Amino acid sequence: MAPLSQSIAVLLQEPDGRPVYQQIAAGIRGAIERRELGPGERVPAIRSLATELAVNRDTVALAYEALASEGLLESAVGRGTFVRAEQLSSPGEPASLELSAQVDRLLALGDARPRYGAGQDVVALHSLIPDPSLYPVQDFRRAFNRVVARDGANLFVYGSPQGHAGLRRVLARRFGESGMDVEASDIVLCHGASQGISLALRLFAGEGDCVAVEGPTYHNVLGTLAGLGVRPAVVPMTERGPDLAALERVLARPEVRAFYTIPSFHNPMGITTDAEHRRALVEIARRAGKPVIEDAFEMDLRCSGRPMPPLAALDPSGVVVHLFSFSKSLFPGARVGAITARGRALEGLVALKHATDLSDSLPLQAAMAEFVDAGDYDRHLGRVRRALRGRHAAVTEALEEHLPPGTRFTRADGGYQIWVELPFAVDTRDLLADAARVGVLFSPGSHFLPDGGPSRCLRLAIAQPGEDEIRSGVEALGRVIRARLEARPLAGDGAGVDL
Amino acid sequence: MAPLSQSIAVLLQEPDGRPVYQQIAAGIRGAIERRELGPGERVPAIRSLATELAVNRDTVALAYEALASEGLLESAVGRGTFVRAEQLSSPGEPASLELSAQVDRLLALGDARPRYGAGQDVVALHSLIPDPSLYPVQDFRRAFNRVVARDGANLFVYGSPQGHAGLRRVLARRFGESGMDVEASDIVLCHGASQGISLALRLFAGEGDCVAVEGPTYHNVLGTLAGLGVRPAVVPMTERGPDLAALERVLARPEVRAFYTIPSFHNPMGITTDAEHRRALVEIARRAGKPVIEDAFEMDLRCSGRPMPPLAALDPSGVVVHLFSFSKSLFPGARVGAITARGRALEGLVALKHATDLSDSLPLQAAMAEFVDAGDYDRHLGRVRRALRGRHAAVTEALEEHLPPGTRFTRADGGYQIWVELPFAVDTRDLLADAARVGVLFSPGSHFLPDGGPSRCLRLAIAQPGEDEIRSGVEALGRVIRARLEARPLAGDGAGVDL
Repeated sequence: MAPLSQSIAVLLQEPDGRPVYQQIAAGIRGAIERRELGPGERVPAIRSLATELAVNRDTVALAYEALASEGLLESAVGRGTFVRAEQLSSPGEPASLELSAQVDRLLALGDARPRYGAGQDVVALHSLIPDPSLYPVQDFRRAFNRVVARDGANLFVYGSPQGHAGLRRVLARRFGESGMDVEASDIVLCHGASQGISLALRLFAGEGDCVAVEGPTYHNVLGTLAGLGVRPAVVPMTERGPDLAALERVLARPEVRAFYTIPSFHNPMGITTDAEHRRALVEIARRAGKPVIEDAFEMDLRCSGRPMPPLAALDPSGVVVHLFSFSKSLFPGARVGAITARGRALEGLVALKHATDLSDSLPLQAAMAEFVDAGDYDRHLGRVRRALRGRHAAVTEALEEHLPPGTRFTRADGGYQIWVELPFAVDTRDLLADAARVGVLFSPGSHFLPDGGPSRCLRLAIAQPGEDEIRSGVEALGRVIRARLEARPLAGDGAGVDL
Repeated sequence: MAPLSQSIAVLLQEPDGRPVYQQIAAGIRGAIERRELGPGERVPAIRSLATELAVNRDTVALAYEALASEGLLESAVGRGTFVRAEQLSSPGEPASLELSAQVDRLLALGDARPRYGAGQDVVALHSLIPDPSLYPVQDFRRAFNRVVARDGANLFVYGSPQGHAGLRRVLARRFGESGMDVEASDIVLCHGASQGISLALRLFAGEGDCVAVEGPTYHNVLGTLAGLGVRPAVVPMTERGPDLAALERVLARPEVRAFYTIPSFHNPMGITTDAEHRRALVEIARRAGKPVIEDAFEMDLRCSGRPMPPLAALDPSGVVVHLFSFSKSLFPGARVGAITARGRALEGLVALKHATDLSDSLPLQAAMAEFVDAGDYDRHLGRVRRALRGRHAAVTEALEEHLPPGTRFTRADGGYQIWVELPFAVDTRDLLADAARVGVLFSPGSHFLPDGGPSRCLRLAIAQPGEDEIRSGVEALGRVIRARLEARPLAGDGAGVDL
């Protein structure tokens, strides 16, 4: 038995009235404080520590989750759980340097966000990282080798700020098939849609400005806005998409500089707006003279229903800046995304990309162009869409079967997000620890709200788990929710907490 | 003869008193305006157009240079010269969207910067892109294949914001050998030193703040500052490095939040400060409580003399944030750099990297770790340093031989930059067209000055040309400078224009 397991085992022999998972957490916390476990060091796998301590795996998972939420542990999918590096106090007493106001805000925001310490045994219904078992790594590797053999050292210089022309041509053609009228020269490649979001926000807004966002919206956008000193102005979501009357009012405010929206497979709500809603949205933006940042991060993940033109395809006036990414439909590791814009917005993006990091990696962009051109990407999309259809069917069936009557949830035509609204007053943050204890993780609704307030909603993501895992995860989640429903006081239902 | 060459040939048959290069430029300008040459289209190679028109190659190069400085052409090393994409007016009249104040400033700055239209026939003494003929592309490709074979899909998920732990360990060990007391957990990997600069500046300064920079300094830092709405506060350079008394005064100003400095192989001056200067600099920053951003972008490019500890190695109090890059010592195409920081600055960097683009590409970082670990990087550094010794000797000898008496220039122990100060009153911007005409490009000193004012200095970079090219380039440059010296009025020398 390893020293860590030993010292925890000693703790467990002296029961102190706390739940076992808290005693395990205390043991590891002590080891970190005493520096027996150093920053960046891996803690034992859940499975092996559970065996050594003769406890249930869920108990260990819950202990790790508790330590992760304290910021002591962090985990990386497929690589295990580690002592967080930030615990390190470097040699010599660090000077207390004053950070910029924006970074101070970012740090405050980061401290308030939940952290997930997902072990290997947990059904990761919280994660938007696509399933690694589907990654066509060898095809991509071969595409990389072909382009390096062909173009050699020319691929290893700086690219232009717009990025590899071949990949831009490939993307322009694909975007054209979805109805966008776009040429390679209208595209700026970037470092995943995440960098696309940063650049597009900075293009239109600076310190003290506002940007309209949907409520709820992609939580990392809220972080990026905080980092830029830009305040969010909330446009509430309805079941048909963002409330257009509210959008019109918000865009009329002079301090609001742009609208960030996810029209297809909304994150977190899973909603895809219809063509009429899209046309009306673009027209409102055009009349207000305000740009729309269209996050089309899952545009290639439709697995049923008919295709819907992107906002950028319904935009003769050029108010839409369109963001694309390979991170969800292929894999995040190439860090390849694309921004499409026109006119001065395009010029501004090129200048901003240059001022930010000069250019992206040409070898990866060239490999991606080759991978798409060779048909590897479309073959992969076929596989992903098949898997996605099965997962959507599984999650729909499981939610119908295991969640209490009155629960509402998205039935999406693609993408990974399912939004679940519970039929009773609860803050879903309070369910997280219970769910982790039974081996399932989800994202509480408050995570996606600009004000971070309570929410009876939660987001499930079917990016990682397969059909069987989805079924068992939703079943476990159903048990936790029903237990909470049965334990609740009979009065006050529905008051005080809403979407 | 291609249509373009034909229409230019027609122009040349009707002499209008303008120099031939201007007539060629007019022909191409007309073709672009008439859309015979579309955005992104390649113009003929200098060599072939010169042959077709029966003119000297230099004449064509000069025409291209003129069009590049008008913003009509742009060129990419090794790939030719192209019609600039920004000329494109997209289908549909673009809405005139209001851009952020920062982006407006960036665009204004970009318009004022010289553009180089370097053809294949020009000695590129202006370029800091390392010589592609030295890139160990096949070794890197093999390292990439090995790590992908070993780690597979695990490399294609998102990395942590700090980046690949293996590469951080490798770098921590190397930094340790240069005297820095650093662990893998103190490092945040980033997208080249260029992103490192953006992140480090944003860490400490926001809209309305000041950051101290050297005058002259790396020109892209001035662009990045403009993009952030941060004003530069200038610390003049002396021949020993930044003026420490001036630094002390500048850092005492409350609005100055940090000092950006390049202590080894300064860009553009080539200077490396000594240990005494370094210790004094760190002590001044420590007393002022202000961070120092140490750009060590060429730290691995020493080719003679004894190693000098980085500022970060002389910094017990943790005021130094250290930037490293593989872009100059290996190649830029992997876009791999590293920031080393401590305490809350480290935490802030991690949060900022996450809010900017989540993480970098793990496969490239892992390949780089493998490449370094296998000894490929050190073998490459051996070759580069040998080449660099030869180039430094060649440039020194050529400058001594071909430049007018009284010219002063850097004799550097490494890096690519040579700073040349001419012994008479001239704005070196005015020499650029003459130099391009005789087939050599350089960077005028004003390019590196925060106020963009005139300068009698210029930067030569020996990153791309080999020894013979350096000799012929400097000889040509010497002819241009001597011609200007001889043509100048005898009075007024030395007045009005200084470093």
